[in-house]
Amino acid sequence: MSEGYEYRGTARAILKEGAHVGDVVKITRRDETFEGALMPRYELADDEHIVIKLRNGYNIGIKLSPDLKIEKIGLGAKPTFASQTYIGKKEELPTIVIISTGGTIASRVDYRTGAVRPALTTNDLLTVVPRLAEIANLQTEVIFTLLSENIYASHWTEIVKTVAKYIDQNCEGVVICHGTDTLAYTSAALSFALQNLPVPVILVGSQRSSDRPSSDAAFNLVNAVQAAAHAPIAEVMVGMHETISDDAMVLHRGTKVRKLHTSRRDAFRSVNSSPLARIQREEITLLTADYQKKDQKRRLVVKPFFNQKAALVKFYPGLDPQVIEWYVQEGYRGLIFEGTGLGHLSRDCFSSVQKAIDSGMFLGMCSQCVHGRVNMKVYDTGRYLYRIGVTPLEDMLPETAFVKLSWILAQTTDLNEVKKVMETNLVGEIDSRSIYD
Amino acid sequence: MSEGYEYRGTARAILKEGAHVGDVVKITRRDETFEGALMPRYELADDEHIVIKLRNGYNIGIKLSPDLKIEKIGLGAKPTFASQTYIGKKEELPTIVIISTGGTIASRVDYRTGAVRPALTTNDLLTVVPRLAEIANLQTEVIFTLLSENIYASHWTEIVKTVAKYIDQNCEGVVICHGTDTLAYTSAALSFALQNLPVPVILVGSQRSSDRPSSDAAFNLVNAVQAAAHAPIAEVMVGMHETISDDAMVLHRGTKVRKLHTSRRDAFRSVNSSPLARIQREEITLLTADYQKKDQKRRLVVKPFFNQKAALVKFYPGLDPQVIEWYVQEGYRGLIFEGTGLGHLSRDCFSSVQKAIDSGMFLGMCSQCVHGRVNMKVYDTGRYLYRIGVTPLEDMLPETAFVKLSWILAQTTDLNEVKKVMETNLVGEIDSRSIYD
Repeated sequence: MSEGYEYRGTARAILKEGAHVGDVVKITRRDETFEGALMPRYELADDEHIVIKLRNGYNIGIKLSPDLKIEKIGLGAKPTFASQTYIGKKEELPTIVIISTGGTIASRVDYRTGAVRPALTTNDLLTVVPRLAEIANLQTEVIFTLLSENIYASHWTEIVKTVAKYIDQNCEGVVICHGTDTLAYTSAALSFALQNLPVPVILVGSQRSSDRPSSDAAFNLVNAVQAAAHAPIAEVMVGMHETISDDAMVLHRGTKVRKLHTSRRDAFRSVNSSPLARIQREEITLLTADYQKKDQKRRLVVKPFFNQKAALVKFYPGLDPQVIEWYVQEGYRGLIFEGTGLGHLSRDCFSSVQKAIDSGMFLGMCSQCVHGRVNMKVYDTGRYLYRIGVTPLEDMLPETAFVKLSWILAQTTDLNEVKKVMETNLVGEIDSRSIYD
Repeated sequence: MSEGYEYRGTARAILKEGAHVGDVVKITRRDETFEGALMPRYELADDEHIVIKLRNGYNIGIKLSPDLKIEKIGLGAKPTFASQTYIGKKEELPTIVIISTGGTIASRVDYRTGAVRPALTTNDLLTVVPRLAEIANLQTEVIFTLLSENIYASHWTEIVKTVAKYIDQNCEGVVICHGTDTLAYTSAALSFALQNLPVPVILVGSQRSSDRPSSDAAFNLVNAVQAAAHAPIAEVMVGMHETISDDAMVLHRGTKVRKLHTSRRDAFRSVNSSPLARIQREEITLLTADYQKKDQKRRLVVKPFFNQKAALVKFYPGLDPQVIEWYVQEGYRGLIFEGTGLGHLSRDCFSSVQKAIDSGMFLGMCSQCVHGRVNMKVYDTGRYLYRIGVTPLEDMLPETAFVKLSWILAQTTDLNEVKKVMETNLVGEIDSRSIYD
């Protein structure tokens, strides 16, 4: 976001007649009229659209055409996110906490400088997405401003403690803004660390920053706050677009979700599971009966720590078995393998696997197939690995298994206990039924 | 397959009236009649079905019910895969070569011992799947009998040389039977190593062994031979079930396919691409116009070698950056990262990445999102990694990128050349168009 944000080409030609980025404009085209602040050109967009931020917080991209009329109705100084009048607490609305960790959803572009800053004081949020004030009394806290590829165990602990603090204060739901890159790892971490939840905890991200015509930031935030306020599900969930249109958000169980597209708005999918609920036109539809019900009297159990001597190892043809031994030498206490198919490694790895077992390491097996369940009883390879002590982890996602291992290793040094917990479903991470998508 | 194969429970009760595994039986139920050899009980199946192998080579599972009549019409000695009369060469049929590397599809269970053996002499194949004799004149060669998790670079080379040998002898198509676990890695390897193909080369596997009621082995083999004989596409492809029913096979481009389910028959999917063709009721429908046409006069280019100093590294929150440095110390010449989102690693990895770059290693970036395309120009992390020399690999699958790197490193020591080839589409592995599934 360090380059110029003014428009180019056709867009520039039309705009130079009067309006500049930041101005409030009125755009008329045939029967339609749009009013809003002219947003910066997104660097990768074409030059045939302009983007305005409507008063309700949504951005809209408008294709330029000869019949388009653009009228400047406000000055450039106006839309710089200055504080609005603070909207006081409404007794009839639930109190929802929005915790920000950074990422695309928590950011806004400064119209003047192009810099990206987290927009998460309550006032800022209400300026950007005024609709939120009608849904809930908001409390907000920015705990970090990180791209999510930089979020890991110690940050998970801090997020967990912050959520627990607000639940202790009797908030009715929590929304966590987070970058999408590692959002599913964090949702797994929170699922294990925040057990026996009384209220919904919803992680939300956005795939397009709020200066883009196709931004999903406002839509996702409004729906996540709706869900935190009204969903009857007291679990850690990820709330994101169900499809590429702004039609609905779905809530995925925190241990059963994966980012499955680099850029689509509906990149997040439940894997080996169904979404728990859909939020559509402000209505919440439950998609399963199998969930933990909201109960503000339930007593939260917090186990916020993660041990960093766990690792995730993806097998592939030619993987150097010495990598496994390197982890043994470095004092790692457990590995999760992303094996092939039903849970396999090549026989070249067997002696290194045996050394890892002999060292007292926990070794768990998941599949790199993404979907489906491991079964180490079908082929000789699986049977052998199972016999020497590799633990099959059913239909658990490898990313979730890695996080779970890191979490349980922070609580016990007893290998049998680690193994027992890894094999046991705690918060929906293992589904005993076969899922055939 | 080392346990008992006789039936238990209800199935046993009915069967003990007369028929045993291996016998030819006639089963009558209401209006239906089935005749075939009684197959062994599959260890994981329930006790309420029996399985018979029909004369056309397909297996069928029949639910036991009180109105079922089972009549023994042949002795147990009959269905032991004894040689049938060899069917001589028919001039009007194309010559298709079936090369076996092992895996579920190439195996059959001996009715008497439960041992699994590759069934790939021509006679054996025609006994198991007689339909094949009507499609093509078959030549067969068993080059190994491996579970595919044990197949890697040196085996790829041997497969490549074998395919090239038969293409030199003017065969009209090649089918390669292969375990499904690493089938997509091998298909990528063959795609790079066998360029300028004159005829189709089709890798085929099966998800259920041929002694299971739901076995896809015969269906897949018949359709793969059909495709090798008649598809107008001279590329390396993977042919597998399109859906979970025996309705159609689709052919996936060898560089754009991934096993995306541990057990479903339609586990293989084209990723960031569409299948090239569908084979349904013996008819081939092209699904794209973008393919290399069959031309038996085209001169095959064979580059069969792979360098094993390439590795695939999946990033996850907390990945120890020392792993990257370990690869440097071990003299690796290139790494493919499975980054998060658009192609990111945590900033904790930056200094190790810099050391790898300084050592002259090639570093390529793909995404762990499976679907979509990396873009290292959107966020600071991507921009930084790009600036210091990490190469974004567009929409290439990480598995394909790893294989391609291993292949190009066997041909040149010039880092610029490696980089140029990795960025260039050779055989469909990079699609310049955006794909929105």
